[in-house]
Amino acid sequence: MSTAGSVNLGGIVPPLSTPLTADGEVDTDSLVRLTEYLLAAGVHGLFVLGSTGEVAFLRDDQRGQVIDTVVRTAAHQVPVVAGVIDTTTPRVIPHLRQAEELGADQIVVTAPFYTRTHPAEIEQHFRLLAAASSLPIIAYDIPVAVHTKFDPAMLARLGADGVLAGVKDSSGDDAGMRGLVLASRPIADRFVVLTGSELTTDNALAFGAQGAVPGLGNVDPDGYVRLWELVQKGDLVAARAEQDRLYELFGLVNAADPGRMGAASSALGAFKAALQLRGVIDCARTADPYLPLNVDEIARVRTRLEVAGLL
Amino acid sequence: MSTAGSVNLGGIVPPLSTPLTADGEVDTDSLVRLTEYLLAAGVHGLFVLGSTGEVAFLRDDQRGQVIDTVVRTAAHQVPVVAGVIDTTTPRVIPHLRQAEELGADQIVVTAPFYTRTHPAEIEQHFRLLAAASSLPIIAYDIPVAVHTKFDPAMLARLGADGVLAGVKDSSGDDAGMRGLVLASRPIADRFVVLTGSELTTDNALAFGAQGAVPGLGNVDPDGYVRLWELVQKGDLVAARAEQDRLYELFGLVNAADPGRMGAASSALGAFKAALQLRGVIDCARTADPYLPLNVDEIARVRTRLEVAGLL
Amino acid sequence: MSTAGSVNLGGIVPPLSTPLTADGEVDTDSLVRLTEYLLAAGVHGLFVLGSTGEVAFLRDDQRGQVIDTVVRTAAHQVPVVAGVIDTTTPRVIPHLRQAEELGADQIVVTAPFYTRTHPAEIEQHFRLLAAASSLPIIAYDIPVAVHTKFDPAMLARLGADGVLAGVKDSSGDDAGMRGLVLASRPIADRFVVLTGSELTTDNALAFGAQGAVPGLGNVDPDGYVRLWELVQKGDLVAARAEQDRLYELFGLVNAADPGRMGAASSALGAFKAALQLRGVIDCARTADPYLPLNVDEIARVRTRLEVAGLL
Amino acid sequence: MSTAGSVNLGGIVPPLSTPLTADGEVDTDSLVRLTEYLLAAGVHGLFVLGSTGEVAFLRDDQRGQVIDTVVRTAAHQVPVVAGVIDTTTPRVIPHLRQAEELGADQIVVTAPFYTRTHPAEIEQHFRLLAAASSLPIIAYDIPVAVHTKFDPAMLARLGADGVLAGVKDSSGDDAGMRGLVLASRPIADRFVVLTGSELTTDNALAFGAQGAVPGLGNVDPDGYVRLWELVQKGDLVAARAEQDRLYELFGLVNAADPGRMGAASSALGAFKAALQLRGVIDCARTADPYLPLNVDEIARVRTRLEVAGLL
Repeated sequence: MSTAGSVNLGGIVPPLSTPLTADGEVDTDSLVRLTEYLLAAGVHGLFVLGSTGEVAFLRDDQRGQVIDTVVRTAAHQVPVVAGVIDTTTPRVIPHLRQAEELGADQIVVTAPFYTRTHPAEIEQHFRLLAAASSLPIIAYDIPVAVHTKFDPAMLARLGADGVLAGVKDSSGDDAGMRGLVLASRPIADRFVVLTGSELTTDNALAFGAQGAVPGLGNVDPDGYVRLWELVQKGDLVAARAEQDRLYELFGLVNAADPGRMGAASSALGAFKAALQLRGVIDCARTADPYLPLNVDEIARVRTRLEVAGLL
Repeated sequence: MSTAGSVNLGGIVPPLSTPLTADGEVDTDSLVRLTEYLLAAGVHGLFVLGSTGEVAFLRDDQRGQVIDTVVRTAAHQVPVVAGVIDTTTPRVIPHLRQAEELGADQIVVTAPFYTRTHPAEIEQHFRLLAAASSLPIIAYDIPVAVHTKFDPAMLARLGADGVLAGVKDSSGDDAGMRGLVLASRPIADRFVVLTGSELTTDNALAFGAQGAVPGLGNVDPDGYVRLWELVQKGDLVAARAEQDRLYELFGLVNAADPGRMGAASSALGAFKAALQLRGVIDCARTADPYLPLNVDEIARVRTRLEVAGLL
Repeated sequence: MSTAGSVNLGGIVPPLSTPLTADGEVDTDSLVRLTEYLLAAGVHGLFVLGSTGEVAFLRDDQRGQVIDTVVRTAAHQVPVVAGVIDTTTPRVIPHLRQAEELGADQIVVTAPFYTRTHPAEIEQHFRLLAAASSLPIIAYDIPVAVHTKFDPAMLARLGADGVLAGVKDSSGDDAGMRGLVLASRPIADRFVVLTGSELTTDNALAFGAQGAVPGLGNVDPDGYVRLWELVQKGDLVAARAEQDRLYELFGLVNAADPGRMGAASSALGAFKAALQLRGVIDCARTADPYLPLNVDEIARVRTRLEVAGLL
Repeated sequence: MSTAGSVNLGGIVPPLSTPLTADGEVDTDSLVRLTEYLLAAGVHGLFVLGSTGEVAFLRDDQRGQVIDTVVRTAAHQVPVVAGVIDTTTPRVIPHLRQAEELGADQIVVTAPFYTRTHPAEIEQHFRLLAAASSLPIIAYDIPVAVHTKFDPAMLARLGADGVLAGVKDSSGDDAGMRGLVLASRPIADRFVVLTGSELTTDNALAFGAQGAVPGLGNVDPDGYVRLWELVQKGDLVAARAEQDRLYELFGLVNAADPGRMGAASSALGAFKAALQLRGVIDCARTADPYLPLNVDEIARVRTRLEVAGLL
């Protein structure tokens, strides 16, 4: 049974990009550097194997390499949270075991996908996983990937029952997330609401989300840590200005020529290109079958970084 | 490189249910009996590890058990086609290797899922897999699971290039499938169009699809083989009557009380209940987190079978 | 109260294009010619003010002109069915009154749209309209426009209650339509199932649909009448060949350069261009804000017509 | 040509419910009282004939009654903005003329609906309407109703060209709305961004939206005016508390028993029930085919109002 809440999660928890070598293997040296660079910026946790980390493109052994590398590098300075992303309960459990064995502090689990699943079955999914796990479970609300959205009442129920230790809300539905914050106030000591948005982070923190998991935090972790600290100080006007600056920087996700590739490959490729340009990782390759950014497209990323004073 | 078309696929190719034991492991004895029962009915191929086979709920080792059991039982009497279903190219490849090693004759591959993928990246996915595979590849068009639909022009192009050996169309878009049949006529000797529909199989065969992959074929393989033979003889009126009978039988998928579980768990549970009632498999359990049918719901399946003369 | 079934509808019932003048008004002279040309081809009914007729782009007075012109021209040779398309019950009723006053024989009604409506409210919509109408009501299942799909059980119930005289199924879900045919067999004398598909018309007629409403029937009514007659004679093989020919012809809907305009404007523009090229109507203009086909795009329509022997 | 920006719109602009009599006609006496009650609360504008106002359920003559009543009652104290909601350009223009003649100050227009429309055609729609109109045009982004979302680049372009005077964003995509605010800063003197959300109004105002159009503002206009004033004073902490209180109150939209009717009829029925309970309007009837709230459901609305101190 999970002992939900045994590790407090909150603050800025970037979802790490997974640096790859030219032949598509995990570049552990670059991953060490990325981890150190994020820690140096003062982030409050590290989320590996999320959508930004291309979890859906990594073989099981590669996923293990990622967790192992980041857990060792973080060395308990901050919690390491691992995505255990697969289609259904029986397929998630081996990933969960792997995360446990490699020392992750918490795990992140989506609703079942590929299969169509009823709300009662989604709830069953989490109850079975909690029964099987020694780690706190964060539910990952990401309709763009799994094509269902969590029922807020279910999340509150699973939080109250100790099945879930929180939710990472990447649904883009800020009004819904605010409802979660309000509904989970009575259990706020053991149930966290984290926003997955890069673009309204200041709002989410202002209305009571306990943390943020911004993909753009790979590129500018200092900015998000600054934003967090401004909100903690109650300086929402300065936080808004920082957020607006980060919003502009986020435009780098549109690096690819319109229509040439998908939004996901453009965004993840741009994050990696930025990390390479900033000297953090060696290679900007994304995983197959994503198309790579070309020279002109990478130049757009460079320009964005220069404008933002990050180069 | 795949040698697409080296095995002719066509006719009735049921997507096998995967019998489970009470604790959720593959029941290989039941799977042997299911395979023999389908072969005895005269089916023309066996498709393992499709959606009906709960592929998304089986661990990698369980998938191997399924392929191994069916390949050995089929003993080259008919082709065995294996679903190698996972999110992206790097994660599909290990399943593909497994299918090769265990003796599958062809593989079935969906578009990437969980991640959002551009059409150019879907095409890249298939080209990379064909380059990596010694087996013919059937593309699996199943938007309800992967949330994209194949571009017919892409399929025709990949067929002409020898990347694909065919398509299994489970999109429900019969007009679109007919367009595929017409567009692929010039390569019909090496590119098959298979319908995934249980309910308009006669139509699809009449307009030129070379085969069908009906989930209900687990329950009544004789009916679908009869339907196939009627179409081959050109007796479309009798084929229609057989199809109408199978349509009525298909009503067993609605066994579950309305709203109690999802359509998928109701349908797959009903197929398994029917197989158990017919004495083919030992246990009607579906995989976690699917909810099981209760006694009243199973009674509805029994009634359907009795009306259809299958008990 | 509607006297559902008082006029038998069935066979080939083309949804008439609405010819417009260069300034966007109804070109009644061209509409008379279009009606006469369809009657000369032997169609069994005329459906005005459907999606093909750009009903959503016509002012109320223009809708009246269309009904009036076609009713007068048809002169009771075949039934005239009028779409009374608007968002909700109170807004449909004035269109319904107009159709009654101008002599339409039946009306065609969609589910409410723009607003989100519960199934119980969709049923209420039809019951209220039937109570208000002296004309038989055909329910129009067109999810691409209204974003809901009818519940087959509701349709059967409304058919049995005399609220509905039939359904025009433009959902593209042939398996679902077949279910409707089977479910409505007991009331088949007073409830018709019409397919809205141009591309699987032969299948729908073979499995028991009583008629078809093919937009392409504007361009080649003779082909669809021939198809109908072949199915009536039981010559499904020849019907299939005719359908395949019409499928190829249907390719003219893709006349527009990829990405330049929507599929709807391309298709409706191509139908009108074909009618102009065949000398039936004077002007190929579609309604605002649809973009017009350019010279190169119209040349593609011409080529299709030449290949089909229609020029 | 529209003289976009000639009337400044901003602040709290409630979308008025349309009170109906028991037989479904506009209750102009109640509408006068609702208008006066909102003006007394200090709202900054009045939006009639929006989704909350059941515009899609009102006949043309009823729409005229609504505009006329509110324009006369408002007597130029605040701007009156009228929704001119219909499927396409030719059908919107008569509504636009009506709004002009009856003295509306601005109009609100959605993308075309029912028909599928290409982005270039949506842009054409607005350009044609601006050419036809003497009133500033606010674009209404409401994907739940029209099933397309505006391209932000298009909105910025139309704002710069003077075609649009602003956008009312009811998409629920706060991150996207923030992008609009940032992108339209150079034209912020003549292009307003208004949020349609009741639940994150404080956030939207904090990041730069110039106003809000909250449906719940019918029930508690004082709360939203207070919220507005707190944001103007820079007291975002107090604004958040007010918003959280309004969030709780918003729970009245779930008055209906689960599954008995749609979310829209439950919400609009609850707003009207609250207005009746507060003595503002005479009758809580919603339009056909919406189902009415029953006694138990209305009791839930009453409880919410009591808890909120509004009774």
